[in-house]
Amino acid sequence: MNTFGRNFRVTTFGESHGPALGAIIDGCPPGIELGETDIQPLLDRRRPGMGPRSSPRHEGDQVEILSGIFEGRTTGASIGLQIRNQDVRSGDYDDIRDLFRPGHADYTWLAKYGIRDFRGGGRSSGRETVARVAAGAVAMKVLALRGIRIESRIVEIHGNSSPAGIDAEIDEAIGARDSVGGIVEVIARGCPPGLGDPVFGKLDAMIGMAMLGIGAVKGVEIGDGFAAAKMRGSEHNDQMGRNGFLSNHAGGILGGISTGADIVVRIAVKPTPSISRDQRTVDITGAERIINVKGRHDPCIVPRLAPVAEAMLALVIIDSLLEQDKIRGWTPHE
Amino acid sequence: MNTFGRNFRVTTFGESHGPALGAIIDGCPPGIELGETDIQPLLDRRRPGMGPRSSPRHEGDQVEILSGIFEGRTTGASIGLQIRNQDVRSGDYDDIRDLFRPGHADYTWLAKYGIRDFRGGGRSSGRETVARVAAGAVAMKVLALRGIRIESRIVEIHGNSSPAGIDAEIDEAIGARDSVGGIVEVIARGCPPGLGDPVFGKLDAMIGMAMLGIGAVKGVEIGDGFAAAKMRGSEHNDQMGRNGFLSNHAGGILGGISTGADIVVRIAVKPTPSISRDQRTVDITGAERIINVKGRHDPCIVPRLAPVAEAMLALVIIDSLLEQDKIRGWTPHE
Amino acid sequence: MNTFGRNFRVTTFGESHGPALGAIIDGCPPGIELGETDIQPLLDRRRPGMGPRSSPRHEGDQVEILSGIFEGRTTGASIGLQIRNQDVRSGDYDDIRDLFRPGHADYTWLAKYGIRDFRGGGRSSGRETVARVAAGAVAMKVLALRGIRIESRIVEIHGNSSPAGIDAEIDEAIGARDSVGGIVEVIARGCPPGLGDPVFGKLDAMIGMAMLGIGAVKGVEIGDGFAAAKMRGSEHNDQMGRNGFLSNHAGGILGGISTGADIVVRIAVKPTPSISRDQRTVDITGAERIINVKGRHDPCIVPRLAPVAEAMLALVIIDSLLEQDKIRGWTPHE
Amino acid sequence: MNTFGRNFRVTTFGESHGPALGAIIDGCPPGIELGETDIQPLLDRRRPGMGPRSSPRHEGDQVEILSGIFEGRTTGASIGLQIRNQDVRSGDYDDIRDLFRPGHADYTWLAKYGIRDFRGGGRSSGRETVARVAAGAVAMKVLALRGIRIESRIVEIHGNSSPAGIDAEIDEAIGARDSVGGIVEVIARGCPPGLGDPVFGKLDAMIGMAMLGIGAVKGVEIGDGFAAAKMRGSEHNDQMGRNGFLSNHAGGILGGISTGADIVVRIAVKPTPSISRDQRTVDITGAERIINVKGRHDPCIVPRLAPVAEAMLALVIIDSLLEQDKIRGWTPHE
Repeated sequence: MNTFGRNFRVTTFGESHGPALGAIIDGCPPGIELGETDIQPLLDRRRPGMGPRSSPRHEGDQVEILSGIFEGRTTGASIGLQIRNQDVRSGDYDDIRDLFRPGHADYTWLAKYGIRDFRGGGRSSGRETVARVAAGAVAMKVLALRGIRIESRIVEIHGNSSPAGIDAEIDEAIGARDSVGGIVEVIARGCPPGLGDPVFGKLDAMIGMAMLGIGAVKGVEIGDGFAAAKMRGSEHNDQMGRNGFLSNHAGGILGGISTGADIVVRIAVKPTPSISRDQRTVDITGAERIINVKGRHDPCIVPRLAPVAEAMLALVIIDSLLEQDKIRGWTPHE
Repeated sequence: MNTFGRNFRVTTFGESHGPALGAIIDGCPPGIELGETDIQPLLDRRRPGMGPRSSPRHEGDQVEILSGIFEGRTTGASIGLQIRNQDVRSGDYDDIRDLFRPGHADYTWLAKYGIRDFRGGGRSSGRETVARVAAGAVAMKVLALRGIRIESRIVEIHGNSSPAGIDAEIDEAIGARDSVGGIVEVIARGCPPGLGDPVFGKLDAMIGMAMLGIGAVKGVEIGDGFAAAKMRGSEHNDQMGRNGFLSNHAGGILGGISTGADIVVRIAVKPTPSISRDQRTVDITGAERIINVKGRHDPCIVPRLAPVAEAMLALVIIDSLLEQDKIRGWTPHE
Repeated sequence: MNTFGRNFRVTTFGESHGPALGAIIDGCPPGIELGETDIQPLLDRRRPGMGPRSSPRHEGDQVEILSGIFEGRTTGASIGLQIRNQDVRSGDYDDIRDLFRPGHADYTWLAKYGIRDFRGGGRSSGRETVARVAAGAVAMKVLALRGIRIESRIVEIHGNSSPAGIDAEIDEAIGARDSVGGIVEVIARGCPPGLGDPVFGKLDAMIGMAMLGIGAVKGVEIGDGFAAAKMRGSEHNDQMGRNGFLSNHAGGILGGISTGADIVVRIAVKPTPSISRDQRTVDITGAERIINVKGRHDPCIVPRLAPVAEAMLALVIIDSLLEQDKIRGWTPHE
Repeated sequence: MNTFGRNFRVTTFGESHGPALGAIIDGCPPGIELGETDIQPLLDRRRPGMGPRSSPRHEGDQVEILSGIFEGRTTGASIGLQIRNQDVRSGDYDDIRDLFRPGHADYTWLAKYGIRDFRGGGRSSGRETVARVAAGAVAMKVLALRGIRIESRIVEIHGNSSPAGIDAEIDEAIGARDSVGGIVEVIARGCPPGLGDPVFGKLDAMIGMAMLGIGAVKGVEIGDGFAAAKMRGSEHNDQMGRNGFLSNHAGGILGGISTGADIVVRIAVKPTPSISRDQRTVDITGAERIINVKGRHDPCIVPRLAPVAEAMLALVIIDSLLEQDKIRGWTPHE
């Protein structure tokens, strides 16, 4: 299943060390002004090689729009997007072609498909997210026309939430040839009430699918989230006044449908599994081995994951917005 | 979207105060022994009126199988399931027909559809889950043939994890005419490695959708979950030996694909929004009002939600299992 | 796949000799006035036992609405529909439990599922269409609000297109203990231009799927259909004037999208396979046998199939109409 | 909806005059040997500029595989395919930027999306099928491993079925600056019994959708097709002997499920709408105009459409084959 969404459908392809990655967007509304410059900035935020605490792999991540645009506007036709890989050094991976890297999908991919592309994790590499980000940028362009915008912030790294602490934690991890996890908060502002389906397709359900569908994410919560489990109803309920809700413990969603308040999502990101320390593993014959992962890795994936989480939230919101457009012409109150 | 699943597709209908609820299961494998007695026990665990700490509504929740079975076995045809409502007292809700109950979907349903069934929340009532549980019981019957079983336990109520404390917390909430939330853990044991799709349809993504698609659930985590965000890679990675993984921080899923270890999921359940205390709200004209919710409500929904969470996990697992059956005949290693 | 449609999704269950048949409609717009009396007339047109040329099985085919309606209007919740079977005589089929009836799905169902319900064809019986007709009637109710109506007529029976000839052909077939096929034309009037998707989901593609998805239908054509293959472009092209198209060879669809003209569909219906004549067949062990099909069968299914074809066309049109509603708010010309 | 299939999902993009066309294949089994040379021959059969009776547009139609392959075999990852456009002369279309060409999607696309790409029909051009053919070639490679092969033949052109007559009809049409239609037969040989779903997703239903989803196709029939409407049951039923079916009037499908016999499909193709003769039309303001379509067009699209029809049949068969693989492990008789 390389497709996300029912109305604004994004289908992606591409591996860490193949010739290119890309996406097809199906269901983008017609008449939207769109060009590569709308997409590039979000891609640049996700790009590797941007600082001392990021993977040194150098990729321009230049997007090319291959279809769906005529005279600068979307036509209703499917939109083809493509990003060529440039800095591919497959040789880096020869040492591990027979080994399962702990914390990676090496073992599980082989268990599933009986074959694997060991070069940088192949399709299960985080590099896959470049196509999501490109598609998410298109979604954001459309959402902006309805006054909706997506933001994110790093809440904490390795349990440390002070601004200086975040860099310090990453530097410490680098020094220890280790890695660290963290928490990202993503917020959608300006959403109208009424988005989301009331049963299986709740807005929070789709957000849960979107976020846990990003590699390295191990948890997701909406509004008060896990803290709500420790609360009483009188504390957690958002009461209402003539100007709307008096609080936002719900994180902008009630019964799976948006309330009009900010949609607030937090995700838990695990520490990067690639570390330059000895770890126990086995090879494809089952023999025990010691592995020490070389290559160009991020000691903390959290900062580069933030734009991916924004993109995924944008895809969920645009999808529910288009679904709601379908109903609007029929509702008795209009 | 009242359908869940791609291969074992469950479509449901029914409201709190309508004549009946039900489900159609499409894609159940043929030749499975199945009867009402396979479904009833799980329904009974979810049933209201079972104790002093549960809603006093009396529903037999007797399931009837309407199709898809011949001589005691599934035939490959879609399976119709139905549960009639019995103890319906719609009059209880006349007081609130114009009011939005805090913490409920009253406001958002109206915002979405421009019309609402105010009797017990209509389709957005927790009563909707009776159809999920019926379908989940069928899934469990099939999973058992492959040695997979689903279990759950209450981890904590209102932050209290001691067995006696759980009842005490609920009793205290009853005394305060309030309600409490909690955390449930659901585990799938015996899953083979290889379940789940590597990109958008990760096994954890589908679990996230399934769990956050249950009303009142505000967070979901896999394995170490949010705790992983505070860890280093060397702590969180599950190393491997000749007998398999040496730990299970990942909760049985790597790169979105099952590892063969137990799949461990925890969900945060908010306190029941219906409380017999004064709360500020507005009516459908926007005028400010005070509401005090009468009716037959659970002070803590956590115990009755556990079988629902089991059912949803069963639906995710059966769906990914059937998906994997499609691939197995083609994998090079078979 | 017991679900039809993407936006107005109909999922059905039920066998010829089970307790009940039914449908769940998911995605019906809210606020539509709806009751059983909107559905019953179309069901009655499809009902058996209505004349000397129809199966003598007596079924009331009374529909019950189980959900999705509040105070006489749709609420946006899924709509459960149910029709109980009454005149079930499974004993009629004991003679053929081990035989494959020529022209029926007996052999292929067993090949697919390894098990079969031999009572009246089980799920592959034409009785399955009762649920489609019930759902189609709901679709027609919604379409009427937009000025769209569906009609059908019998074009020919056994190659005979004169009104008196139609009855004569059926009577002759009865006399010969044989059966006859025919052609039905279904027309949707009042459709706006713009319905249908331009690539795989063309309006004619969805009509093709809908019609060939009815048992006994062996061909479908749009507008001039097969006659177009014998024409030149100058004959077949519909030229335009200031009042619109000057002809309708296209049958109301160009490039997969409706033109605003009548949508004209013809389907070829094969002769009923159940005939009271000796035919060669084999039993489930592969041994050769002679079969002579008893039971209560229609000598010509064409008249009862017409409302089914109307229902399926209604489901295609409502689905594309809702899809188009999603786009309308975005198109530059609005 | 630019995606076809449920299990072997093909999503396409690209316009007549854009930079490139392409497809993503999602769900291709792993471990299949695959390279560009498996795809190119079918593309070459569809290619323009191949003879005096074909459009003189010169396109190399060279396919590039961008992902999903490692060391010459499919990995289970989505497969990206791309074909660059080369001989693009958009200037040819300046004359018609405000006109609706009769028989084309010009009017309907604008009615749907409110904007259109007038260069060669944009997305609604037959050039779109290049991506289908590329994907279909991959499907055929997989099908061949199970002994299934797809063939096609031209049955008639402009009502003429003699071999010499076919060329003569096209030459006559060229002389008259007109165009002609025809009939193509597509056959799948070697399919096992059991493919196809018994209700809405019948194998013939999916074939109907696939074929009527090709531009210019106005009718589709299976086996005896429309001739069956003129037959009696005793003529049309395929009786059985110990070696299988004694005839194949059904065209290899009963009750929507394959019988094991050849699957026989015929499609009616309309005459090319672009003709160099004066035709009445209107412009986008509704004013009446005369149009005479210049440009590089095929006088008869039938020969180039045959490989497209083969590709679409291959996509239907592979999809149903993978669906059936899901069931096989569960059927009682295995």
